[in-house]
Amino acid sequence: MVEQHLPWLEVVRLGHRRDRDKRITSHLGLTARALGADGIVLCGDEDPSIIETWNNVSERFGGSFSARYESRPMAYLKSFKKGTKERPPGIIVHLTMYGEEASKTLPKIRRDRPVALVVGGAKVPGELFAISNHNVAVGNQPHSEVAALAVALSQWHSSVAIQSRFEGGSIRVIPSREGKNVVEKKSTSDS
Amino acid sequence: MVEQHLPWLEVVRLGHRRDRDKRITSHLGLTARALGADGIVLCGDEDPSIIETWNNVSERFGGSFSARYESRPMAYLKSFKKGTKERPPGIIVHLTMYGEEASKTLPKIRRDRPVALVVGGAKVPGELFAISNHNVAVGNQPHSEVAALAVALSQWHSSVAIQSRFEGGSIRVIPSREGKNVVEKKSTSDS
Repeated sequence: MVEQHLPWLEVVRLGHRRDRDKRITSHLGLTARALGADGIVLCGDEDPSIIETWNNVSERFGGSFSARYESRPMAYLKSFKKGTKERPPGIIVHLTMYGEEASKTLPKIRRDRPVALVVGGAKVPGELFAISNHNVAVGNQPHSEVAALAVALSQWHSSVAIQSRFEGGSIRVIPSREGKNVVEKKSTSDS
Repeated sequence: MVEQHLPWLEVVRLGHRRDRDKRITSHLGLTARALGADGIVLCGDEDPSIIETWNNVSERFGGSFSARYESRPMAYLKSFKKGTKERPPGIIVHLTMYGEEASKTLPKIRRDRPVALVVGGAKVPGELFAISNHNVAVGNQPHSEVAALAVALSQWHSSVAIQSRFEGGSIRVIPSREGKNVVEKKSTSDS
């Protein structure tokens, strides 16, 4: 179990379908990680290979990023919202093209509570709109859950804070005007 | 041909593979449209069905969004950069995890020239780094071309400007705190 510092922000991916959604869901998790979420909770079809992909990237590129499967997402979200002995009550933010504009809504959300950023799949259960503290849209045009998550996270976090998160790992990409500048640490026996 | 107002910004999707990339490329185009690009140029495999998907969404949700196929992307980008009798010289911005931080680089780019925002596929030709005026990263962690495009476009455009772009179309989503609020215009004979 990864230690949950505050503010803890995790992405909850609903309704994953192993065959149809593999790449989109994979991109979702990588986006969550790269843009500063603390973890992702996969719901829908079980899919160990996708969790392995995410863990692999974390190992190579550093940082601690929690990736796990949850079979009963609605029950989980309700308990997340209510809180437990170990965890204060959380805030459910549902990303949907039907919601309120993210740039107006996200700044209103308090930062001292764990946040679950819920990303729908093909069919989102209607009760999610009611469970959620906020239904938030990145524009009200149809596009992509990966894009919506990316914009929401980039608004939630400052990019400065994100850069410093990826400690450890063997690969580091140095920003470059032209071409690729990659520093690769050889792994040592104790790493 | 869509009239090219200035600043004209189009997304150029390299190396599309019809089978493997269908959904990611589809999301890319929808993201381009929703977050304010003027059009998308598809390269790699020809794929009329994906262009139809994009045109369909534009028809239903409004706005003018240009979607077309280009078989020789490198030659096209060179001519885009050079300009033609009809079009001033353009600026090539290559989105890559190896580039310079978008939030620092994008504000430096002049706004009175057409811009091609190039999104790589599986293998990006090395010469692209040299052709490009700017190699730009959304973080230097691996994630998703859809996410990178979304963040870059949201930094390039103000969201206010985007909201007003989708004139026409039969469907309008009204931002809502809870549930779905969709206004659907019945099509009339002359629309």
